[in-house]
Amino acid sequence: MPSLAVVVTARPSYARLRSLILALQASINVRLVVAGSALLERYGAVVDLIEADCGPVAWKAYTGVEGETLETSGRSTGLLMADCATAFRALQPDAVLVHADRHEVLGAAAAARMLELPLIHTQGGERTGSVDDRIRDAITQLADYHLVSTPAAKARIRQMRGHDAIVTGCPSLDVARSAATLPAVDVTRLPGDGRALKASEPFLVVLQHPTTDHAAAAHDEMATTLEAVAQVGIPAVVLWPGDEAGMAGASKAIRERRRNFRTMRNLPPETFLRLLTQSVGIVGNSSVGIRECSYLGVPAVNIGDRQANRERAGNVVDVPVWDVGAIQQAIEAHLWHGPALPSQLYGDGRSGPRMAAAVRQILGGL
Amino acid sequence: MPSLAVVVTARPSYARLRSLILALQASINVRLVVAGSALLERYGAVVDLIEADCGPVAWKAYTGVEGETLETSGRSTGLLMADCATAFRALQPDAVLVHADRHEVLGAAAAARMLELPLIHTQGGERTGSVDDRIRDAITQLADYHLVSTPAAKARIRQMRGHDAIVTGCPSLDVARSAATLPAVDVTRLPGDGRALKASEPFLVVLQHPTTDHAAAAHDEMATTLEAVAQVGIPAVVLWPGDEAGMAGASKAIRERRRNFRTMRNLPPETFLRLLTQSVGIVGNSSVGIRECSYLGVPAVNIGDRQANRERAGNVVDVPVWDVGAIQQAIEAHLWHGPALPSQLYGDGRSGPRMAAAVRQILGGL
Amino acid sequence: MPSLAVVVTARPSYARLRSLILALQASINVRLVVAGSALLERYGAVVDLIEADCGPVAWKAYTGVEGETLETSGRSTGLLMADCATAFRALQPDAVLVHADRHEVLGAAAAARMLELPLIHTQGGERTGSVDDRIRDAITQLADYHLVSTPAAKARIRQMRGHDAIVTGCPSLDVARSAATLPAVDVTRLPGDGRALKASEPFLVVLQHPTTDHAAAAHDEMATTLEAVAQVGIPAVVLWPGDEAGMAGASKAIRERRRNFRTMRNLPPETFLRLLTQSVGIVGNSSVGIRECSYLGVPAVNIGDRQANRERAGNVVDVPVWDVGAIQQAIEAHLWHGPALPSQLYGDGRSGPRMAAAVRQILGGL
Amino acid sequence: MPSLAVVVTARPSYARLRSLILALQASINVRLVVAGSALLERYGAVVDLIEADCGPVAWKAYTGVEGETLETSGRSTGLLMADCATAFRALQPDAVLVHADRHEVLGAAAAARMLELPLIHTQGGERTGSVDDRIRDAITQLADYHLVSTPAAKARIRQMRGHDAIVTGCPSLDVARSAATLPAVDVTRLPGDGRALKASEPFLVVLQHPTTDHAAAAHDEMATTLEAVAQVGIPAVVLWPGDEAGMAGASKAIRERRRNFRTMRNLPPETFLRLLTQSVGIVGNSSVGIRECSYLGVPAVNIGDRQANRERAGNVVDVPVWDVGAIQQAIEAHLWHGPALPSQLYGDGRSGPRMAAAVRQILGGL
Repeated sequence: MPSLAVVVTARPSYARLRSLILALQASINVRLVVAGSALLERYGAVVDLIEADCGPVAWKAYTGVEGETLETSGRSTGLLMADCATAFRALQPDAVLVHADRHEVLGAAAAARMLELPLIHTQGGERTGSVDDRIRDAITQLADYHLVSTPAAKARIRQMRGHDAIVTGCPSLDVARSAATLPAVDVTRLPGDGRALKASEPFLVVLQHPTTDHAAAAHDEMATTLEAVAQVGIPAVVLWPGDEAGMAGASKAIRERRRNFRTMRNLPPETFLRLLTQSVGIVGNSSVGIRECSYLGVPAVNIGDRQANRERAGNVVDVPVWDVGAIQQAIEAHLWHGPALPSQLYGDGRSGPRMAAAVRQILGGL
Repeated sequence: MPSLAVVVTARPSYARLRSLILALQASINVRLVVAGSALLERYGAVVDLIEADCGPVAWKAYTGVEGETLETSGRSTGLLMADCATAFRALQPDAVLVHADRHEVLGAAAAARMLELPLIHTQGGERTGSVDDRIRDAITQLADYHLVSTPAAKARIRQMRGHDAIVTGCPSLDVARSAATLPAVDVTRLPGDGRALKASEPFLVVLQHPTTDHAAAAHDEMATTLEAVAQVGIPAVVLWPGDEAGMAGASKAIRERRRNFRTMRNLPPETFLRLLTQSVGIVGNSSVGIRECSYLGVPAVNIGDRQANRERAGNVVDVPVWDVGAIQQAIEAHLWHGPALPSQLYGDGRSGPRMAAAVRQILGGL
Repeated sequence: MPSLAVVVTARPSYARLRSLILALQASINVRLVVAGSALLERYGAVVDLIEADCGPVAWKAYTGVEGETLETSGRSTGLLMADCATAFRALQPDAVLVHADRHEVLGAAAAARMLELPLIHTQGGERTGSVDDRIRDAITQLADYHLVSTPAAKARIRQMRGHDAIVTGCPSLDVARSAATLPAVDVTRLPGDGRALKASEPFLVVLQHPTTDHAAAAHDEMATTLEAVAQVGIPAVVLWPGDEAGMAGASKAIRERRRNFRTMRNLPPETFLRLLTQSVGIVGNSSVGIRECSYLGVPAVNIGDRQANRERAGNVVDVPVWDVGAIQQAIEAHLWHGPALPSQLYGDGRSGPRMAAAVRQILGGL
Repeated sequence: MPSLAVVVTARPSYARLRSLILALQASINVRLVVAGSALLERYGAVVDLIEADCGPVAWKAYTGVEGETLETSGRSTGLLMADCATAFRALQPDAVLVHADRHEVLGAAAAARMLELPLIHTQGGERTGSVDDRIRDAITQLADYHLVSTPAAKARIRQMRGHDAIVTGCPSLDVARSAATLPAVDVTRLPGDGRALKASEPFLVVLQHPTTDHAAAAHDEMATTLEAVAQVGIPAVVLWPGDEAGMAGASKAIRERRRNFRTMRNLPPETFLRLLTQSVGIVGNSSVGIRECSYLGVPAVNIGDRQANRERAGNVVDVPVWDVGAIQQAIEAHLWHGPALPSQLYGDGRSGPRMAAAVRQILGGL
C-alpha cells in the first residue's frame, strides 16, 4: 500500500483535510505529522480530535517557539523544517501532502523538497493580497503536484510553473455542505462567556484575525470592529483569535468589551458553519466569509486587505480600512437585503472524494 | 547610514558577493551573517578570509548538521532559518540580501520574509535543470527585489512574479575579468597531492559536483569522468568536491585514482580562474564551465543535467549522461579546435559596481 | 573591566539577582542573557523591567517550546543549552553566573561548562525534596564557584565536591528587607479579578505551584487548597500559577472558583512581600513561605513535599498531603497564635552586596 | 516485556555496551537511540554495525553541529537533549540507560531526568582528572541507578549521593577477555596508509586524544609524542583521532609525519585489543592503556593529565607533560622489562552478564 505523509499544523487545516484523509485511508497508508497549534491544549488539542477520527498520528512535532513575535514565528518554522526532515526520513513516505499557506507549512514543504520526496500541495495559486501570497507561492514552487480550488488558481500556477494543476474545488465547502444538513444550533446555550443570546433574536458573528503585516495595530482593529457592531445594536458572537502574531492585542480588545458580546473559542467546525447559517451575517476578515459563506449564502462584511485578492461571490461587502462608520454601514446594508444567493465559485461541497482520487492517481503513477 | 544584512554560506557565494560587499561598505552598514561551510576549517575557513577583506562578521550561524544525508541537509536548512530569524531580530537591518540557490539560502530567505524585512535576491531567474531551480524559484517568490545576470532571467521573474528584475550581469565575471590580468600560475608548484604538472605540458581541469538528485551514484559519476580523462591521456588537475550530499562517494572515486592526477582543494578563486585560462579546458558539471569559462573563452565539457537549462555560449559541449566514450570524444573535439571565443552572455565583468548602485537605490527608497 | 554573563530565565530569578546585578555594574561589565518566561508577554515581559533597571540585555534566547508537557520542557532546556553555547561564544565573558535550580538553568550551566568558562552558581546545596534537588546538584557539579544561602548548603557542597562554597545568605531576603520598609499596600485596590478585599479585614494569601512530579494532579491540588481556604471563611488573594507543567490544570481550578477570591498575577516582588506582612498568613507550597516569610515573621501553611527538605524556621506548619481538613486545621492554628517570630535562618537581608563582593573577588582571581 | 532505551553516541561507547545489550535482548525490549559520531560515515558508520548486531535502531538523532569548536560541542549537546526528549516521549521506555562521560551523554541524561524516566548510568564515579569528571558527576546526580566498575567508584557515588551503586566491573574488559582468545592479527596486512609492518618486528601503538582543556595545543602534543616514538626507533601504528575538539590539529601533526608510521582508523575493537597484545606497548593518553591494558598486561606510557586520577595497575608509566625526552625514556623503560603482569583492578571480563542481571532487577522493581 503506498504511503503518504500528511502535515497538519492547525485546526482550520485539519477541517479542510479531514474528508480527504478519511477518503484516503482505505487504500493509502496515511502517516499524519501533527505540529504547531494543533498540538496545544490552549488551542483545543486538535491532535486528540484527529486521533479520534483517524487513528494514531505518526509524528508529533513540538516545534513552536514561545513568544508570539516575528522572530519566534521564524524560529518555529525553521525548527519545524528541521523536524520534518527527520520525520520524513523516519517515516519513509512515498509522498508528502501539505495544505495552503500558513508560514509553518513552508517549513514542511521545504523539508519534503530537500528529502526529494514528491510533494502534493493543496489550495495553491490563490490570492489574498497579504504576505500569505508569498508563502503560498513559494510552496507552489517547491511542490510537484497541485490540487487547487478554482480555475483562476490553476491559471496562476500554470503562469508560475508552466504545468497544470488539478481543480478539485475547496474542501472547506465539504464541511459547509454537511453542516447545512445539521439540526439548528441552540443559540441560547452557546459555550463561552458574556451575554447569552435569546432564542429568536437576530445576531452577527465576528471572526477577525490580527493582520500579520500590522501586528501592533491588532488591538485597534478589533476594537474598531466591535465598536461598529455595538453601534448597529444587534447582539454578536465574537470568536477569540487563534495562535498568531497580534493575538495578545486582539484578545485584549475583546476582553475590554466582553460583557457586551458572547465570546467563544473552538466551536467544532461544522457547528460553527451551521451557526453561521442561522446568523444575519459574518463580520471580520476570515476567509470563511469569502469561501464557505459564499456557498452557504451568508452575508459577509470583509474588512481590510487580508483577503484582498481572493475571488468573491455576491455575498461579500468589502470595507477597505478599519472605520467604525463604514463597517456599521456595510452591516446595515446586509441587514436590509437579507440572505445572499448561494454560489459555487469555490466548489460544490464534494471536493474531498475528488482530491482523494487525484492523490491516489498521483501515488499510483510514482 | 542604512544597514543591510548579507548572508554568506559558502566559498563560491563569497566569491560572487565580495566585490558587491566591498563596493557597498562606504555608504551602507553591511552586516555579514556567515553560515554553512563558510565557517568550517575543513572547507578552508572562508570566514577568516571574509574578516580579512571586510572586517568583523556580525553573526556566525553554526547550524550545519553532521551527516551528509538528505535529512541532515534539511535539518541544517531549518536550523539556519531559525538562527537567521534571531540574527535579523538582533541586527535589525533595513534589508537582507541573499545569493543564488544553495538550499540553505532558502532558510535565510524565509527568515527574512517572516521578519517582514525587504529581501534582495541575486542571481534569481536562472535555469540549471536540477532541483536547484526549485529552490531558486522559491527564493524568488519570497524576495522583494531581484538582481539578475541575464535578460532571460529577468523575463522568467516577470513571468513568475509580474514585476521587473534589474539586470546587473553575473558578478562571477568580475572575478574572471580581474583574474585574466594576473600573472600566469606556475603549474609545476600547484598545492595538493599526486602527480606534479610539468611547465609546458597541456592539461585539463576536472571540477565535478555530486548531483544532488542521485547522491548514491556520485562515486560512479566521478569514476567515469576520471576514466575518460585518463583515456584522453592528458594530465589533469582534479578538484575535491565541497560540502554536499554525495561528497563521500565522489571523494572515494578520486582517492582510488589520485596518484594519476593532481588533486587539490581550495585554490583562491582568482588563481583558479587564471589556471583555467592556461588549461586546454574544463571537464565536469560546474557552473564555472558555463559561466566564467564563456567569458574567458575556455572550452568546457559539461556532463549530465546539473546545468541542463542554463544558457550557454559557444565554449560548451554537453555530454548528457556519464559515459566514458562520450566524454572522451567531447574532450578530444575541444582539443582539436583549441580555445573558444569569449562571450558576454553572462555579463561584462563589471557587475559588482552595478549591483552596488542598485542596492543603494533600493535601500534609499525603503 | 572583567565581564560576567548572567543568565535570567524567570521573574523570581530576576528578583533574587537584581540587587547583585546592580551592585556589580559599577565595576563589572555585566552581560545579561535573558531567556524562558522572562521574555514572554503573558508572564509580564520581565525583560522590559530588566532593561529599565539594568540597561539593554546582551542576548535574548527565545528557546521555550510550546506545549507545557515534560517533552517540551526537555526540548526547551536543550535548545537553551544550544543557544547559550552561541551566546557565550559571541559575548566572550570572563565568567558565567547562573541561579538556583530551574530546569532551564541546567542548560545554561552545561553550556558554560562546555565552553570552558568559569561558572558561578548561586543557591546551590539546598534541599527541597523534589526533583529540583537533582537538577540543582547537577548544576553544582558543573560549577566552579558556589554562593550559597546557609551553612547547611555549604556543608552539602563540601560533601559533593570536596571544596568550600561561600555563604552569602539568600538574596531573596534583601527584597524582603526593603519590602518591609514600604508603606502598606492598599488592599482594597489590588489588581486582578474577583472579590475585592475590604480595608480592615484579615486575609490569607494562596501561592501554590503545580508539583512537577504529578502534573496531572495539579487541578485537584489547587481545588483542595481553595476548598480548605473557603472552609476557614477568611477572604484570600490567590496567585495564578506561572509557566510550568501543570499550569493549565491549576489555572482551571482557580477559574472554577474565581468569584470567591481575589485572583492576581505578577505583582511586583516587593509589593507582594509587603502584602504578605499585612496578611494573616500564606498557604501553598512556594519557597516564599519557607524563606522570605521566615525573615518577615509571616505564618505559612506549607502543603505537600515540594519544599520537603528545605530548612525551616518556626513560621511554618507542614501539611504533608492535600487534604481539605488538614489544611483547614493548619490555617486555623496559625490564626490562633498570630504572627510568627522573625528568623535569620536564610540570611539578614544584606546578601546582594556580599555576593557582589564575592563575584568581584572571583573575577579578580581568574 | 519491560522496555529500556539505551543511548549510544560513539564507537567506544558501543564497544562497552554491546555485551550488555545482547544479554538484555532476550528479556527486555531494548530501544536503541543512536546519536553523535556513531551515525557518521567518516567515523565508520557504527550504526550499521549496531544494526547488524542488535537489529534496527529505534531512533537516530542527527544532532551533531559541524565546526569542531567548543561552541559547536555545546550546541550539539543541547540539540541532542532536545531530540532525546522527543525520542523518549515517542518511545515510552520504562527506563533509560546512558554510558560514561562524553559530553553529549549529559544531554541524553538530562532529557531522561526531565521526562521523569528512571535513569541508569554506567561507569559513573570514576576519576580521570579532566573536565570529563565534571560531566560524569553531573550525570551521576541526574541518575537513579549506577552500575560502576570499581569499589572506589562506588564509594565516590555514596559520598555524592548517599546511596549505593552496584559494582559490576568494567565491560570494556569483556571485550578484552574475548579478544585475547582470537588468532593473532597479521600485522603485515593492517589497513590504512604509510609504512607497512614486517611480520616479526616489535612495534608500538600510539593512541592519543587531543586534551579537551587545551584544544589549540593538540597539534604540538601529537607532534611531540610522534617525535619521541621516532627517537626510540621502533615502528609504530598510529591511530587517527576521533570526533572531538582538537581533532584537526592532531590530525595535521599525524599527516606531517605519516610516511614514517602506519596510520589507521576504525579497527574493530576486538581486533585492536588483540593487536595490542602483540605490541610492545601503547603510548598516548587513552583510557585503553589504563583499563584494558591492565587486564591484558600490555605496558602503557600515559602522557598528560587526561587520565590523571584514574586508578592504575602496574602496567602504566606516567609522563606528566609532553616532553620528547621523558616520553622516549618511559618507552625505553618498558621495552627493557617486557610485558606487564595482568591485573583485575577494573574487572574480570565478565561484566556484561553481571550488568544485564542488575538492569533486569532494576526494571523488575520499577
